[in-house]
Amino acid sequence: MIRLQPEDLLLVLGARPPSDVGAWLRDGLRDAVASGRLEAGAALPSSRSAAAGLGVARGTVAAAVDELVGEGVLESRPRSSVVVADLARHPVGASSRGGPADAPPRPASVGAPDPALFPRAAWARAVRDAVRALPDAELGYPDPQGLLGLREALAAHLRTARAAPVEAEDVVIVSGVAQGLALLGEVLAGGSSGRRVVVEDPASPGVIEQLRDAGLDVVPVPVDGRGLRTDALPDAAAAVVTPAHQFPLGVVLAPDRRRELVAWARDGDRLVLEDDYDAELRYDRQPVGALRGLDPEHVALLGSVSKLLSPALRLGWVVAPPGVREALVDAKRRADLGCSVPEQAAFARMIESGAYARHLRRARLTYRRRRGLLLDALAREVPHLPVEGVAAGLHLVVRLPDGDAEARAVAALRGAGVPADPLSGASARAGAWGVILGAARVQGAAVPRVVEILGAVVTRGEVSFASPRE
Amino acid sequence: MIRLQPEDLLLVLGARPPSDVGAWLRDGLRDAVASGRLEAGAALPSSRSAAAGLGVARGTVAAAVDELVGEGVLESRPRSSVVVADLARHPVGASSRGGPADAPPRPASVGAPDPALFPRAAWARAVRDAVRALPDAELGYPDPQGLLGLREALAAHLRTARAAPVEAEDVVIVSGVAQGLALLGEVLAGGSSGRRVVVEDPASPGVIEQLRDAGLDVVPVPVDGRGLRTDALPDAAAAVVTPAHQFPLGVVLAPDRRRELVAWARDGDRLVLEDDYDAELRYDRQPVGALRGLDPEHVALLGSVSKLLSPALRLGWVVAPPGVREALVDAKRRADLGCSVPEQAAFARMIESGAYARHLRRARLTYRRRRGLLLDALAREVPHLPVEGVAAGLHLVVRLPDGDAEARAVAALRGAGVPADPLSGASARAGAWGVILGAARVQGAAVPRVVEILGAVVTRGEVSFASPRE
Repeated sequence: MIRLQPEDLLLVLGARPPSDVGAWLRDGLRDAVASGRLEAGAALPSSRSAAAGLGVARGTVAAAVDELVGEGVLESRPRSSVVVADLARHPVGASSRGGPADAPPRPASVGAPDPALFPRAAWARAVRDAVRALPDAELGYPDPQGLLGLREALAAHLRTARAAPVEAEDVVIVSGVAQGLALLGEVLAGGSSGRRVVVEDPASPGVIEQLRDAGLDVVPVPVDGRGLRTDALPDAAAAVVTPAHQFPLGVVLAPDRRRELVAWARDGDRLVLEDDYDAELRYDRQPVGALRGLDPEHVALLGSVSKLLSPALRLGWVVAPPGVREALVDAKRRADLGCSVPEQAAFARMIESGAYARHLRRARLTYRRRRGLLLDALAREVPHLPVEGVAAGLHLVVRLPDGDAEARAVAALRGAGVPADPLSGASARAGAWGVILGAARVQGAAVPRVVEILGAVVTRGEVSFASPRE
Repeated sequence: MIRLQPEDLLLVLGARPPSDVGAWLRDGLRDAVASGRLEAGAALPSSRSAAAGLGVARGTVAAAVDELVGEGVLESRPRSSVVVADLARHPVGASSRGGPADAPPRPASVGAPDPALFPRAAWARAVRDAVRALPDAELGYPDPQGLLGLREALAAHLRTARAAPVEAEDVVIVSGVAQGLALLGEVLAGGSSGRRVVVEDPASPGVIEQLRDAGLDVVPVPVDGRGLRTDALPDAAAAVVTPAHQFPLGVVLAPDRRRELVAWARDGDRLVLEDDYDAELRYDRQPVGALRGLDPEHVALLGSVSKLLSPALRLGWVVAPPGVREALVDAKRRADLGCSVPEQAAFARMIESGAYARHLRRARLTYRRRRGLLLDALAREVPHLPVEGVAAGLHLVVRLPDGDAEARAVAALRGAGVPADPLSGASARAGAWGVILGAARVQGAAVPRVVEILGAVVTRGEVSFASPRE
């Protein structure tokens, strides 16, 4: 085992600032672990010797270490040693807990997070504390708009994290983005603006199914390297978009196009449904602010805990413009009367206690590291296969030259336990071939396996893209 | 404080049986507390002196007392004394916990349970244990039909509690009966059997709204003292009924009519939606078995935790006939992808650990006692006002002579914090006047208050029922 010296820490941390020594230690150590400059398993010096070596108070070191242990960046071991956590220790397809033999595993979605990162203990604590504190009056039938305490906590979180104007009264709690889209689809279908809805091409087949189920006519508009082609927007009642991180291509909607999309909505009194897909999983910089910030009257912002905590929780939100809010709450009431109060209260408590922010930091670090290792391996071994999108989210798109390669890649990846969908299934256009690859759990031995599969599907000489990358 | 002697216990328990002394002690004490033969606050003798006086082992006494403390029938006090719990200690309208000032209280439903009885600690433990044990594979997107572990636990519970043939594969987990009806309504509206659905008259206005929302035509059929008038059944695709305890009148569907209803469904290949309203809250005897037992191919059994644990949880089930099961699961998937896995797993754990059965026993005892006290007071003070229904459930119906008395009674009861709805609002027929009164929290000073309100609305001489009790 590597035993780090205080000098090693000083090297990765850099010069000690005159103030906020705690943040310097904490953020510096976190970055060093995430970037791999401190290796997994390496043991930290004792807090006494670290404090002496770095010239800081022992309590400051202990506090920073405690916080990083809480985040999962460091790990406590027996005999009080603290080691750098292995953020990539759960192999793909292997469960950290054995499931009952009779529960057939459902194939994981390409957008699903690694369930091994779900903060089980923190969630159980949040439920316990929330259920203990709930007033009796909240244990009757729920408010169909959502528990006020959660709407307040979420509004505060979204104002900061998504730079969008959000108040508790704007928020409607739903059972995930799927329900949010189904209910907004119902509201649109019952309105007087017609039944045409713009979707991105490519887009999630599930989203398109949800809209069609609501009785809407779906009009695909192409996406290029700068996002939705706003010059191609037809007349329609609404548009469903993923501006922060386009699904599946991973591009960010360009600033001029953001403005054009919002102008299209405002000029025709249309509604933009902003599916804030992956916005809080950007790894290289702050995500762009939510589109809602440009026009809160014409943009509904949808989000959920599915990528950030777990899709098993079924909790999401719609930040709804005043014009559709009442109809949306009514649709929610008619659908199921409202969401579970103990679960809403528990999520509010996780936000307020900081446990949610700690979990997000830890998840971002882990996924960033895994993504980096996979991208490095792909660039090294199959450089002829283009990988799309910015550094964000839980999936990658690898372009492939034809439908045959696509079908073989999807089958082989799924066979290896890696979630994979055909890009052609997400597009109405011919010639968009590739694989949408769920990368959340790809690590360790799974990295060379993925590279090997993709390398075998397309040998270097064969590559010729019918539809070049735009 | 009353200090009970071993002789007092012997008196209420009766002769000691040759075997199962533990059950004799436990069930006898429970009945004695529920019936009021052991008064609230009375202190039990020590387990040593009780054991000596009753001629049983001390451990047997201690085990029975422990179990009854767990059920809330007895209470542990400081200095190891154990007293008879006051099962009626929470006054109406008063919350046992203060709510935040900014959460506006929503009026309680006439069918809502007393939130003070919600087993907060047991629920939090169930969530903790369930979340700890869930395999990683269950933390992805849920199975839209429901978590297999919960479907298995519920099937076993319903086989016993409702004497109905139920297997895990028959069960679809939904977010409460309201969602179950909305989804089944959607399935019916999309089917080829037409859009007419029979409902009971009177019935829950919420149920009728749910069916109309799904695009169905609602055909009311009268209810008399033996339940739904099966001789008046028209042609229709389905019927929504509450056979175990009719809402709101509280009658039980008579055996011959149960058979006629099922024959109507079978002969026309129709669907009966059995809303198992209050079935597990029968106080005087075992509830009648579920209608599903007569014909599992044509009866869908709907239930939820709303009356039994809390409507804040949003968990329910449909035991679906094979003919609609697939369409129902598909409708659930399209609505919201499925229910929260941690919450489903927690409910399964409560069933399996026995905590759910203990809670049901305790709730039944409490409501039975409260109901008895209220009925006694009504019979004594306003004997000219007929009270409807069998000894079950969370509400009462008091018949009133005209619409004016109905309006005044509803307003005065609501003003006093007692949930109340007009009976006329639940019926398409003229002349059905009365008040549907939420009795779950009516106790203590609220009992004379309710009696006073009803007595003031109708003085004895005025009573003349346009529509006599059938």
